Amino acid sequence: MRIKAPYLLFLGDAADPLAAKVAQGIVDWRPDNCVGQLSLDNCNADCGLKEMDLSEAVSAGAQTLVIGVANRGGVISPDWIEVLSQALDKGLDIAAGLHNKLADVDVLSDKASKLGLTLHDVRHPTQTFNVATGEPRSGKRILPVGTDCSCGKMYTALALEKALHNKGLAADFRATGQTGILICGEGVSVDAVVSDFISGATESLAPAAADDHWDVIEGQGSLYHPSFAGVTLGLIHGAQPDYLVLCHEPTRTHMRGLPGYALPAIDDCMQAALSAAILTNPNAKIAGLSINTKALDEAKASQLLEQLEQQHQLPAVDPFRTGVDKLLDAML
Amino acid sequence: MRIKAPYLLFLGDAADPLAAKVAQGIVDWRPDNCVGQLSLDNCNADCGLKEMDLSEAVSAGAQTLVIGVANRGGVISPDWIEVLSQALDKGLDIAAGLHNKLADVDVLSDKASKLGLTLHDVRHPTQTFNVATGEPRSGKRILPVGTDCSCGKMYTALALEKALHNKGLAADFRATGQTGILICGEGVSVDAVVSDFISGATESLAPAAADDHWDVIEGQGSLYHPSFAGVTLGLIHGAQPDYLVLCHEPTRTHMRGLPGYALPAIDDCMQAALSAAILTNPNAKIAGLSINTKALDEAKASQLLEQLEQQHQLPAVDPFRTGVDKLLDAML
Repeated sequence: MRIKAPYLLFLGDAADPLAAKVAQGIVDWRPDNCVGQLSLDNCNADCGLKEMDLSEAVSAGAQTLVIGVANRGGVISPDWIEVLSQALDKGLDIAAGLHNKLADVDVLSDKASKLGLTLHDVRHPTQTFNVATGEPRSGKRILPVGTDCSCGKMYTALALEKALHNKGLAADFRATGQTGILICGEGVSVDAVVSDFISGATESLAPAAADDHWDVIEGQGSLYHPSFAGVTLGLIHGAQPDYLVLCHEPTRTHMRGLPGYALPAIDDCMQAALSAAILTNPNAKIAGLSINTKALDEAKASQLLEQLEQQHQLPAVDPFRTGVDKLLDAML
Repeated sequence: MRIKAPYLLFLGDAADPLAAKVAQGIVDWRPDNCVGQLSLDNCNADCGLKEMDLSEAVSAGAQTLVIGVANRGGVISPDWIEVLSQALDKGLDIAAGLHNKLADVDVLSDKASKLGLTLHDVRHPTQTFNVATGEPRSGKRILPVGTDCSCGKMYTALALEKALHNKGLAADFRATGQTGILICGEGVSVDAVVSDFISGATESLAPAAADDHWDVIEGQGSLYHPSFAGVTLGLIHGAQPDYLVLCHEPTRTHMRGLPGYALPAIDDCMQAALSAAILTNPNAKIAGLSINTKALDEAKASQLLEQLEQQHQLPAVDPFRTGVDKLLDAML
C-alpha cells in the first residue's frame, strides 16, 4: 500500500543530524513529497524544511506524518506518542520504519481505526507473497550488490533512478528496506519477509514492464555477510537483473558488525553476484563499480576510482562526487 | 519446544500410502517413539503399527497424537476435527506440520488451552531468533546440500545420524523442515523463519557442542533453485558445516516445480556449496555424494555410483541401497 504524499517529516527529539537521516533521505530524493518538518523542543537536527505545527502542515496539504528520526534502539519513543496521537486527530496517516510497530501502540491503533486512518509500519510487511516462479519477465532491471551491508547500495540505486529520469527514460526505484520505502512511498522490507518468499516478494516488487522501462531495485546485505547472505541471494534471483553494480566502501576494515570477518575481494564479490544472477537472467552483466569515498579526500578518491577502473576494466564512480552517468553509459 | 513422545500416529483418511509418508518416516527412523496408529474408516495407508483407538493409545503411554497424513493442499481436514478434539479430551497433545494451524481451529485451541495441552504447529516457528554471529563453534557438523529440492537430503541426514550411532558416536539429527521435526520431535522450519534470521536460527539449532559430537543438519532447497536458494545459502552459513554431502536424483529432468530450469551440473553445485560454506568454516570439505537411485534398477544404480566415484574422486552412495558408511569413512 502506497504512503499518501505529501508528508510532514517528524524530526522529534533527534539527538544529532545523523539520527534524522531517514528524514534527510526523503528531502534529498523526494523533495516534492515534503511540505515541512516538525521538531520537538530538544531536537538537534534540521532538514532545512519550513518548521510547521500539525495545523499548518494540514493546511499546506500534508497527508501523512512520516517519522524521520531514530532514537537509540530504533523504537517508538514514549515522548512522541502525544504528537502522533494529535496528528491522527488532524486527519494525518502515520508512517514509520521502526523495530516496534505503531499498530502495537493501543492509543494510536484505536484512534486510527476509529478515524479510518492508516498506520504504515514499513519494516513489517503485511502482504502475502507467492513463491518465486523464476519466469523471465520483460523490462530492464538494475540491482546494486555490495561487498558489505550499508556501503551505499540504496544511494546508488536512487542516483541511478534520477540519472535515468534526467535522460528522459522511464525508471522506478524499487525499495527493499524501510528507509527506501519511506523515501519512495512503497516497497517491501525483504529482510522481514518469511524466507521461502524472498525471491517471490522481489518478483512482485519489480514486475514485468515495458521493454524500455528500468526498475532500479534497492540492494540488501552482501553474499559475503554471514548473517544476511540468504536475503541477498534471494533478492538477486528474484530481481533477474540485467545489470549489477558492485558497491564498496574502501576504508572498512571488517564486515559490518563482525570484527572476525574480513571484507571480500571486489573480484570475488562480482564473480559470486554474477554467478548467482545468471541463474535467473543468463544475460546479466556487471555494469561497473560504485565506491563510497566519503572517508577519502578528493585527490585520494579520484586516484582510487582511476585505479579500480584500470584494475577491473569497468567504470568506477562515486554517486555523490562524480554522479553515475558513467555507469549508465555502460548500460544504455 | 520438544514434542512429547511416545506418539499415536494419526493416518486419518489417507488416500494412499504416499499420503501417510510423514507417519512412515517416523516409523522408519524413530520406531521407539510410536505406540500405534489410528486410521479412519476410509484410510488406504498402513504403517504396520498396531491399530489403536484413543483410549488404547493412552493406556499404552501415548503422550501426543501426531498427524502423519497430508490430504490435497496439506491442510487440516474438517473430517479430522472430531477425533482431534477427542484426543485432547483424553489428555494428548497434538502435533502437525500442515499449512494451516491447529491453533487457528477454535474448538481445538480453546480446548487445549482449557486442559493445559499443547498444539504443535511445526511448520510455523513461534521462537524468536538472533541475527547470526558467524562465530566459530565447537563440535562437528554435517550438512547435506542438493542439486534440487526433495532429492534425499533429509533421508541422507537421518541415515548419517544412524550410522554415527552404530559406530558408538554421539550424534544428533537437527531438523529444519516439518517432516524432520515430526520425526525427531524438535527443530526449526527454517523456510518459515523471517529471512534476516535464517542463519541465526540455524546457529541456535546446532549450537556449540563437545569436540567429538556430530550434528547432522537437515538440508533444504538448492543454491540452484530460483525460488528457495536464499534459504539454502542462509542454512549453509549458519550450519558452519565441516562436511557437505551432495545429494542428487539422477532421473530428474528439471528443477522441482520449474520446467524452464535444468538441473545444475554436480560439479558446479559442489563448487557453489563449498564456496559458500568456507565463508563461515574455512575447513569445510565435500565428503561425497548421496544419490537417490530409487528410479533405477540395481545394475544401473551400481553402475552410476561407480561412474560418479571415478568422475568426482569422491565416495558415492545411495543411503537406501548401500548405506552411508563410505561417506562416514571419508569423514572419520
